Amino acid sequence: MSDRTAECAEPQRRSIGAKRNPATAEAILTAAQELLREKGVKGLTMEAVARRARAGKATLYKWWPTRGALLVAVYERSKGDYAHEDKGALIDTIAAFYHHVFDFWKTPEGQVFALIIAEAQSDADVAEALERYREERLATLAEVVGWSLARGELIEGVQAEALAEAIMAVAWMRLMTGRLDSDAERLAHEVLDGWIVGKR
Amino acid sequence: MSDRTAECAEPQRRSIGAKRNPATAEAILTAAQELLREKGVKGLTMEAVARRARAGKATLYKWWPTRGALLVAVYERSKGDYAHEDKGALIDTIAAFYHHVFDFWKTPEGQVFALIIAEAQSDADVAEALERYREERLATLAEVVGWSLARGELIEGVQAEALAEAIMAVAWMRLMTGRLDSDAERLAHEVLDGWIVGKR
Repeated sequence: MSDRTAECAEPQRRSIGAKRNPATAEAILTAAQELLREKGVKGLTMEAVARRARAGKATLYKWWPTRGALLVAVYERSKGDYAHEDKGALIDTIAAFYHHVFDFWKTPEGQVFALIIAEAQSDADVAEALERYREERLATLAEVVGWSLARGELIEGVQAEALAEAIMAVAWMRLMTGRLDSDAERLAHEVLDGWIVGKR
Repeated sequence: MSDRTAECAEPQRRSIGAKRNPATAEAILTAAQELLREKGVKGLTMEAVARRARAGKATLYKWWPTRGALLVAVYERSKGDYAHEDKGALIDTIAAFYHHVFDFWKTPEGQVFALIIAEAQSDADVAEALERYREERLATLAEVVGWSLARGELIEGVQAEALAEAIMAVAWMRLMTGRLDSDAERLAHEVLDGWIVGKR
């Protein structure tokens, strides 16, 4: 069964069944990341990734049905999990989030997100993968706004998802326009003060 | 002096001095727009535009110092002037703006803006031209917010520019993620209600 492990010396990694072989998945994502770094976003094709990872194209497509999905997976892997920490006040929680994400977006791995958004403008698969990612992140952010709603921190009528979108949109725009040296705390105030009880 | 007009049959348009010859400028922007449509954003090079417009490259560079500047000029020409109309309430003014800009962004000419933002992620000249454009539009939007501030419509502590940025960021994000069928009025409420006196 050595042909199922990542350590095998055979010319092609194999993976049978729908369950991901973690070593193969890792090899694919690493190959994709290297290609991105070396050849830019256009150099990341399913063909080239499969070749470099010595994986079958069928395996690639089974786990990441499109190039867009693979691109987003590369980004998510290097980003790691960011668990929003409830700082007791929404502004502080969001300031911490902005701080974290701006710092990450300044790195080469973080810049991949700007490239994904760019690529989504002319590639429907990338657009779809980005949209799925955006919806997930929006849901998470809406939950964070929900904590704040639950403790009565926000004015009446606030919709968690709408406010989460504004929080996210401002961050994306800073990324798109290369203004990641923003003061995270000040930005959180600028986006949120209007929605917080007692801030006027 | 017929060689200075757009109608001349000579192989190359001429323009002497720093003042733009409107016919030549027009020919250049039209050529750039055609190239964009036919070959995509990467096909718009100074070389190709000059050739198609039968203009000198020196002329091109004099009026639009970079490819980015030319791209933004093409976009601005097709967009036309949008004068914000004061509807008496900021939400209505911004709803009208969202309505107008989303409708335009849905057209092939409007989609050029998404391509400019995309291109800015990997081309420093385009990024610089976009940043200049963003600053101009932000200043205009901040003025609109200023009308509202002046008549006491907004809560205390609102900074016109910060609020203008949120208004703009949400629109950009809708463009970047292909969600231009948004309800403009609802979106204006979602972005602005918190900042308006008496809305809580």
